[in-house]
Amino acid sequence: MSGPRYTELAESLPATVPFVGPETQERARGRPFRARLGANENLFGTSPRAVEAMRRAAAEVWMYGDAQSHDLRQALAARMGVDMQNVMVGGGIDGLLGSLVRLTVEPGDAVVTSDGAYPTFNYHVNGFGGVLHKVPYRDDHEDPDALIAKAAETGAKLIYLSNPDNPMGSWHDAARIQAMIEAVPEGSLLILDEAYLEFAPAGTAPTIDPDDPRVIRMRTFSKAYGMAGARVGYAVAHPALIGSFNKVRDHFGMSRASQEGSLAALDDGAWLDATLARVSAARERIAGIARDNGLVPLPSAANFVSIDCGRDGEFARAVLAALVERDVFVRMPFVPPGDRCIRVSAGPEEALQVFADEFPGALQAARAPAG
Amino acid sequence: MSGPRYTELAESLPATVPFVGPETQERARGRPFRARLGANENLFGTSPRAVEAMRRAAAEVWMYGDAQSHDLRQALAARMGVDMQNVMVGGGIDGLLGSLVRLTVEPGDAVVTSDGAYPTFNYHVNGFGGVLHKVPYRDDHEDPDALIAKAAETGAKLIYLSNPDNPMGSWHDAARIQAMIEAVPEGSLLILDEAYLEFAPAGTAPTIDPDDPRVIRMRTFSKAYGMAGARVGYAVAHPALIGSFNKVRDHFGMSRASQEGSLAALDDGAWLDATLARVSAARERIAGIARDNGLVPLPSAANFVSIDCGRDGEFARAVLAALVERDVFVRMPFVPPGDRCIRVSAGPEEALQVFADEFPGALQAARAPAG
Repeated sequence: MSGPRYTELAESLPATVPFVGPETQERARGRPFRARLGANENLFGTSPRAVEAMRRAAAEVWMYGDAQSHDLRQALAARMGVDMQNVMVGGGIDGLLGSLVRLTVEPGDAVVTSDGAYPTFNYHVNGFGGVLHKVPYRDDHEDPDALIAKAAETGAKLIYLSNPDNPMGSWHDAARIQAMIEAVPEGSLLILDEAYLEFAPAGTAPTIDPDDPRVIRMRTFSKAYGMAGARVGYAVAHPALIGSFNKVRDHFGMSRASQEGSLAALDDGAWLDATLARVSAARERIAGIARDNGLVPLPSAANFVSIDCGRDGEFARAVLAALVERDVFVRMPFVPPGDRCIRVSAGPEEALQVFADEFPGALQAARAPAG
Repeated sequence: MSGPRYTELAESLPATVPFVGPETQERARGRPFRARLGANENLFGTSPRAVEAMRRAAAEVWMYGDAQSHDLRQALAARMGVDMQNVMVGGGIDGLLGSLVRLTVEPGDAVVTSDGAYPTFNYHVNGFGGVLHKVPYRDDHEDPDALIAKAAETGAKLIYLSNPDNPMGSWHDAARIQAMIEAVPEGSLLILDEAYLEFAPAGTAPTIDPDDPRVIRMRTFSKAYGMAGARVGYAVAHPALIGSFNKVRDHFGMSRASQEGSLAALDDGAWLDATLARVSAARERIAGIARDNGLVPLPSAANFVSIDCGRDGEFARAVLAALVERDVFVRMPFVPPGDRCIRVSAGPEEALQVFADEFPGALQAARAPAG
C-alpha cells in the first residue's frame, strides 16, 4: 500500500505557512496575548450594522450563499462607478490572489514583486511553480520603476505592488501609480493590492479605468471594514479577466453570512469614517510611543506603524521576541533593511497602553547581552 | 495593450459553473421560489446552539479565524477516534476536493468517477487538466467493481465515490466499501465522499483506519448539520496526505464564525438526532407524493429522494421545468438513465405541501404535447 501520487510540483513544495497565527502562538505559549497588535486586524471592530446583518444571517446558513455574490458585486460596482462585470468577490484577497496566480502562472513563469512584500502572494506563486524575481525596496517604499524594469527584463506575467505598502506602511500617490500602469510591459499584468487603501490620504488610488487590461485591483473587507474573519475580498478589472475567475473559482465558496455582513458594512459610511479617524489617532499614538523610546516611527498610510528599532534585523527580532514574551502580539518585516523595524497595528488605547507599558522593557531586554 | 497571458490550461477551460444557484434562477425569473427543494440543503435548519455561537462570533469577525482550525479539528478527531493529524478542515467538501485535485492531478492524468456523479468534482479535475474516465451507474448505484477496474485499466490517480450517492440517494454497506478500499490499485487514491453519511443507516461507513493511505474521506457541516452557507467541510486520511494540504491551502481562509458554529453544532447531538428523524419522515412524505402520482420513488439514504418520472430524460426535464415554472426549485440527475428522475430535497411539511400541490400539474404539463 503506497500513498497517493502527487504532482511533480506538489512533491517539490514544502508544507509551509505564510504566517503563524496568534492562536497558534497562544497555544504554544500556554497563555493568551494581552494586546493583539500583530496581524493588522482592525481592533476598532466591525460596523454594528454589519454585525447585526451577520447575526440575522446566522439562522439562514442552512442555505448556500448566492454563488454570484450578486447583490454585493452590484453594490461594489455602483460605489466604484464600474459595471458588475468588472467585479469579482472571493475569499479575501488571499483567495483571489490564489485564483489569479492559478490562471496565469505555470512552472517556470516569471513573476515580479518586492523583496519583503506580501508573503502570501509569494506562497501562491511558489505553489504554482512560478519563479519570483524580487527587487529591493527603495527608502522603505516599493519601487515602481524597478518593478517595471524587472518585469520587462524577465518577461514577467505578473507584477505585484501593494499601495499603501505592507509591511512598511509607505505609499505612492495616484499619479505615480498611474504612471506605473502606463508602463506595464506588453503581456504583463499589474496586481495592485489596495488592501489598506481606505486608510490612505485622498489621492492615493488612481481613477479606475474598467477597460484597462493592464491592471487588476484587489480590495478587502478585512481591514478598514473590520471583517478579517469573514473572508471577503474583491477584485476589480477588465471584464475578460474578471470572467476568467469563473474557470477556476469555488462558485459556492462564499459564506452566506459574510456576504450579508459585507453588504451592510459597505452601507455604513459613518462607521467607516469613525474607524478611519480612530486609526489615524492610533497611528499618532504608536508614533508617540516610538518617540518616547527614542525611536523613529515610519510614516504610514495603513492601519499600522512600522517602528525603526535603530539597529539590525537581529536586534528587532529580539525586541519582537521580548514583546511576545510580555504578551504583546506584534509582527515585523522579514527582509533587510525593513527587518530593522517592528510593525504595530492600530488599536484602542487599552491595547496600545499595554504596548506602551511593555515596549521599554522589551527594548531593554533586547539590548542586554544574552546571559 | 493586451490582456494578461493565461496558462495554456486556463486558456482551454470554459467559464462554467457546476450548478446554477437558486438565487440566480430567482433573479432570472423575477420572483422567488415558494419551495427551495433543489440543492439538498437542510431545510430543518441549524442547531440553535450553532446559530447562537455564530451570533456571538459575529462581533469578533474583526479577527482572522484560527489558521489551524485547532479546536474544531480536535473535536472532530476525538469524535472519530483519530488523531488531529488525520483531519483537515476546509471550505466545504468543494474546497477540499479542489485542493486534493491540485495536489495530485496534472494535465493528462487519469481520474475515475461515475457518469452522472458529483459535477463539482469533475469541474476540479477538468480545471487541473485531468482526464475523466466515467463508468456507468448499475441499477442506480455507483459501481465499486467497475470503478476499481477502470482505475486499474487507466492507471488513475484518483477514484471518486460518494456513499450515500448523490444524485440517486442509493448506498452501499460498509463491507462493500471496505472491500473497495482493499481493492484500490497501487498508486490510486479513493475519495470517499460521505457528505450524506449521517442520513444513512448504521453500518454504511466502514471503520476509519487512520493509517490507510488508500482512502480519504470527505465529510461536511453543509448537510445533516444544516450549515451549507457556512462553508465547513473536513477530510480524514493518513497524516502524510492530510499534511500535504498545507502546501496549497489558503491558511487563513476559514471564516471565524463558521468555525465557532461548527464546533457548537458538533456538540448538539440532540438537534442532530431530531434532524435525522425529520429527514427520515420527509423522505417518506416525498415517496408518498411520488406514489400518489403513480410514480416510483427511489430508496434513499440521503436527505433527498429521486423520483422516477417514468419516461426518459426529456420528459423529466419537462417536469422539472414545469415545477420551476410553478415556483418549486428542484434539480435532477444530468445523465441517463438517472435523468429519468427528478431529485427533491427533504424539508418541512409546508415546503413539501407546495411540491405536493404543484407536482400533478407539472406532470400534466410535461405530458401535454407542446402547443
